[in-house]
Amino acid sequence: MKKILGVLLASAFAMSAAGSPTLADPLRDAALEVFKPLPSTIPAVKNNRITPEKIDLGKALFFDPRLSASGVFSCNSCHNLATGGDDNLPTSIGHGWQRGPRNSPTVFNSVLNEAQFWDGRAADLKEQAKGPIQAGVEMANTPPVVMATIKSMPQYVDWFKKAFPGEKDPVTFDNLAKAIEAFEATLITPAPFDAFLNGDDEALTAAQKKGLALFMDKGCSACHSGVNVGGHGYYPFGVIEKPGAEILPPDDKGRYEVTKTADDEYVYRASPLRNIAVTAPYFHSGMVWDLQVAVAIMGTSQLGEELNKEEVRLITAFLESLTGTVPPVTYPVLPPETAKTPRPTSEVIKK
Amino acid sequence: MKKILGVLLASAFAMSAAGSPTLADPLRDAALEVFKPLPSTIPAVKNNRITPEKIDLGKALFFDPRLSASGVFSCNSCHNLATGGDDNLPTSIGHGWQRGPRNSPTVFNSVLNEAQFWDGRAADLKEQAKGPIQAGVEMANTPPVVMATIKSMPQYVDWFKKAFPGEKDPVTFDNLAKAIEAFEATLITPAPFDAFLNGDDEALTAAQKKGLALFMDKGCSACHSGVNVGGHGYYPFGVIEKPGAEILPPDDKGRYEVTKTADDEYVYRASPLRNIAVTAPYFHSGMVWDLQVAVAIMGTSQLGEELNKEEVRLITAFLESLTGTVPPVTYPVLPPETAKTPRPTSEVIKK
Repeated sequence: MKKILGVLLASAFAMSAAGSPTLADPLRDAALEVFKPLPSTIPAVKNNRITPEKIDLGKALFFDPRLSASGVFSCNSCHNLATGGDDNLPTSIGHGWQRGPRNSPTVFNSVLNEAQFWDGRAADLKEQAKGPIQAGVEMANTPPVVMATIKSMPQYVDWFKKAFPGEKDPVTFDNLAKAIEAFEATLITPAPFDAFLNGDDEALTAAQKKGLALFMDKGCSACHSGVNVGGHGYYPFGVIEKPGAEILPPDDKGRYEVTKTADDEYVYRASPLRNIAVTAPYFHSGMVWDLQVAVAIMGTSQLGEELNKEEVRLITAFLESLTGTVPPVTYPVLPPETAKTPRPTSEVIKK
Repeated sequence: MKKILGVLLASAFAMSAAGSPTLADPLRDAALEVFKPLPSTIPAVKNNRITPEKIDLGKALFFDPRLSASGVFSCNSCHNLATGGDDNLPTSIGHGWQRGPRNSPTVFNSVLNEAQFWDGRAADLKEQAKGPIQAGVEMANTPPVVMATIKSMPQYVDWFKKAFPGEKDPVTFDNLAKAIEAFEATLITPAPFDAFLNGDDEALTAAQKKGLALFMDKGCSACHSGVNVGGHGYYPFGVIEKPGAEILPPDDKGRYEVTKTADDEYVYRASPLRNIAVTAPYFHSGMVWDLQVAVAIMGTSQLGEELNKEEVRLITAFLESLTGTVPPVTYPVLPPETAKTPRPTSEVIKK
């Protein structure tokens, strides 16, 4: 893959200038060996057939702040569909104004990640969805209280029955997580890069094409590849040179916490880079606000290469071509509480 | 208006049973002397011509958590369109996990209120919108930081220009508030009660019709009248008998804080009752969760009347006919931050 830049671009540019439609294109051909365009239909997920009823229920749950103990936070609070599918904070603020330990990843296209969370500790989104609901620094709730909340609202019970037809006991915490997963699976954001991969020569600017070639040439795509341009493998942060303690706090050992294997110290899932330009700040610590700075840090820490200013600019231009179109979402109207609905509590219980 | 119940209902029920469409109906006629159906078009507001561009900008701002210092709270956090236009909390939780002093009122139909806030201290929604943004216990921001935030995002600047064409300096805090007001003016929720007022005999159940007659007969409609079934006059809470200190905390003197007139101690704007059944908990203190309990308290405190269980049930049934249809709102996609965007701060500054 090394040093393909010059050869590829000469021909790519010639074709683009000529305005010819989907001819063979060496840059596209090389890219298609490494990346995949987003699918045009909702991705299937394991053990969770996606239906319109499940999607609608999942949307309601995703936006429902009553899943949190305080009644303040919904899934959408930290994975805000209006702001890139994340919260644009270094680390999220949750129950009792506590700070979460890591930067909130985007929900967009997350169904296509190999595993969920920065350390991959959840196999899929239905497993992931249960985490923040119960985390003391996030939604600080418990499955029994969540389910009492849901069961107190007849409209929700009806929606669960329709989303999980034929099940004897459809209103469960597992099904709640499955419904959320079904909605999240719809959050696919096709981007100019997909149009390019699909054959549209005009979808990327000249700078973005140069950036794409550099991204492959320099080796970024060794970790950030596939349909999500990342999100499917684990690598040490600082494989060549560890960044400073502010960016890589020594007390967060990443995947080591999951596997308890020394090799996994400071290992994280390679970030999926779709929508990266609209999801600052960067890294699991959320300590870098500028995408160009983040690209430069990746150069030194992961590639052992001091990227020059122009290279950083071009790679960043390519990354901007990963900003996709958010599917239209009609804001839900949620079932009203009843006398049986557990009351919200803002109290912080120290464990 | 007293004792019209028996006479009115006999004839109203006869007509309803006969299924006749819009004949003269004494209950409707009496109701139309006191109430008004919602308009079928967006209400005009003072000094703020409403245009599609202004509505779209206002929607983006309404949902933008970056109007708050922390980046956590948007207008929609406490006036959530998914949950009755309010937050279903006794009083709102804001910056630094602080509690606001009063229950968050619904944004739905609020454009039709005579004035805004529980004490009417804002003449209209464009004045109101500026309050929570700056309140230390809510969004804790300042107009200069808000405007620096907006101006840092070219897409917002463009939207302001389009929403306020011909203005030399369109990107102002005043215009931000006007855009929010324009969006909020679209949040009109026609309810079965409107259909009844407009001539549909079948829109209310028999119990709701009895409740409506009681609501007028007992004198509730002396304060809760007009298009919003309240929201346009100021009355002491406890005009006959003060409720307990939990419900009427002695240190919150209501409109007295605005007018500094002794007569205004514990005076509040009569609550607009549209969507009241989906906006528990009740009263400015938010200390009552059950609508029937709230109705009974109003009977003793405002009317000097111990309503019996059946009367409370019927009046509550009528109030449920005020739950309206929320207009479909497509969740916005907000402009991404830039290097110039002020960074969020979770710090609580004590004054």
